[in-house]
Amino acid sequence: MRNSPEFELIERVREALREAGVEPAPGVVGIGDDAAVTPGIDGVLVTSIDLCVEGTHFSDAFSDEQVGHKALAGALSDLAAMGARPREAYAGLVAPPGFDAGRAVAIAGGMGRLAATHGVAILGGDLAAGKQLALSITVIGEAPDAGALVTRSGASPGDAVLVSGELGGAAAGLAVISRPELANELSPAVAEALRARQHSPQPRLELGRALAAAGAGAMIDLSDGVRADSEQIASESGVAIELRADRLPIAEGVEAVAAAAGSDPLSLAGAGEDYELLVTFEPDAVEAALEAAAGVGEGLTVIGSVGEGSGVTVAGNGETLGRGFDHLARG
Amino acid sequence: MRNSPEFELIERVREALREAGVEPAPGVVGIGDDAAVTPGIDGVLVTSIDLCVEGTHFSDAFSDEQVGHKALAGALSDLAAMGARPREAYAGLVAPPGFDAGRAVAIAGGMGRLAATHGVAILGGDLAAGKQLALSITVIGEAPDAGALVTRSGASPGDAVLVSGELGGAAAGLAVISRPELANELSPAVAEALRARQHSPQPRLELGRALAAAGAGAMIDLSDGVRADSEQIASESGVAIELRADRLPIAEGVEAVAAAAGSDPLSLAGAGEDYELLVTFEPDAVEAALEAAAGVGEGLTVIGSVGEGSGVTVAGNGETLGRGFDHLARG
Repeated sequence: MRNSPEFELIERVREALREAGVEPAPGVVGIGDDAAVTPGIDGVLVTSIDLCVEGTHFSDAFSDEQVGHKALAGALSDLAAMGARPREAYAGLVAPPGFDAGRAVAIAGGMGRLAATHGVAILGGDLAAGKQLALSITVIGEAPDAGALVTRSGASPGDAVLVSGELGGAAAGLAVISRPELANELSPAVAEALRARQHSPQPRLELGRALAAAGAGAMIDLSDGVRADSEQIASESGVAIELRADRLPIAEGVEAVAAAAGSDPLSLAGAGEDYELLVTFEPDAVEAALEAAAGVGEGLTVIGSVGEGSGVTVAGNGETLGRGFDHLARG
Repeated sequence: MRNSPEFELIERVREALREAGVEPAPGVVGIGDDAAVTPGIDGVLVTSIDLCVEGTHFSDAFSDEQVGHKALAGALSDLAAMGARPREAYAGLVAPPGFDAGRAVAIAGGMGRLAATHGVAILGGDLAAGKQLALSITVIGEAPDAGALVTRSGASPGDAVLVSGELGGAAAGLAVISRPELANELSPAVAEALRARQHSPQPRLELGRALAAAGAGAMIDLSDGVRADSEQIASESGVAIELRADRLPIAEGVEAVAAAAGSDPLSLAGAGEDYELLVTFEPDAVEAALEAAAGVGEGLTVIGSVGEGSGVTVAGNGETLGRGFDHLARG
């Protein structure tokens, strides 16, 4: 197979990963054998699989580099939400008709640059023909022990609910990508920052580990939106969560996009794909949590509280939080 | 999300996995959190990802149970070819329009029954909408150390080349599935055995570990066919391989299918998807290899030898080995 198209493609992907700064450590068996072989893990393994499918997670307005970045970012964000340290990644690529090695190299480059930033090795993959471009990314991380990790089930009544960074940027970015005339309401820098929130999300890996070490109760990454992801914590922890709409940190430009589109900033702020972390802390530990976040250069905002019961309520005129976004973004 | 369709689907899949005999061990964080958490590994991790896409790896003549089985079998077969012990599996499912929880449960059942047979836990997954059914399976296994594993690069000139089981069954099965009239040439039991080789392949996990322990040089599983997979070993090991067509163990019914289809048994025998193991041993170790295989109830046949040079040659009227199969099976 040394001269076959598949062999050549694998070699070009390996080269693209090396150029991106991702290289297997000595002694590791990486791409090219039946399976990868890596050193054992003293503590616990933390593993997640994440799909990224054309038409569902990205459109043809995304470059192949951006598709590779976003697919890996979504998977790494799950490890961030556990407080785990990422180690290695594996990529399955379903290639549509006409797909070529150049596109595979571009996708590998986008993945590889993000992987190199976080010290993640890309050690294996598979390629198959299909009708549409799809990526399946499995990430393996580690932690000293299970107690060092944060699940979705650790929220307790009385806890504060906090969120990192700012919300709504990814949804406003998708709106701007889908309806370019919306960018007329924004400075070029703000428009580009919103687009980047959509196509190049940054997994909050350092922050996740810092919050885990600071004693987080429950944690999840915001892939489905702050309301939907709060419901996951409420459900898995057996508690109620009250969010305060007036406390939500809204990203710059989101209000302008919402106004131009005749919508509501809260619709965008709750729409998901921001990949920020939603986390609960006992009230006494909130100060330490804010310091831990500041220590890794991230902001954290108290946006609600945990109570007895079940489900999520939104106080402060929050009826539209995360509602009606699909209609807006898809036009 | 407790009442959402996605939550209900995940609960039904968990239940299907429990019924299939697959249950996370105590203390393991399985399906339902951001990531799975499992105990550390003393030796080395062995990891592989494998795609299984509608139209490429299976047709609508496959039941959903068979799709689930075949997808997991293909991934586990890669661990077999390393000599690793499988531990856990993760499944990404791209769901086409109209897909429902019943289909997810059937796929999980097919995966789960195979997983239970081999003591594999299914600990996570992801679901996304797409145009066609596709499964991405990542399997993680373990071994005491890297020296206990068998890569594709360990073949040396003078080694014997052996193959497990019998060849051509999967391709003949695909021909019978695609062209049911071919079954008229076979007893019902043989026709069913061939179909099963196609839709329910059995990964040779015990055999892989036994051959690794017996000192195998290089090993690969037969997914692409004995000629193409020999080329992988030749290429990665920097050697030449000569296969003897007249020594290949051909599965019962393959000759009859080939005759009825106006083809050649070797075309089917080299077509792949048999998921048998192709392995090299020093001549002095062949007897021990045969005993190791017999010890786990498997047969092993010497089918060639390793020499200096590069590439694969086929002696004994082997020109048609693995050639022209696509036309037969799809046509």
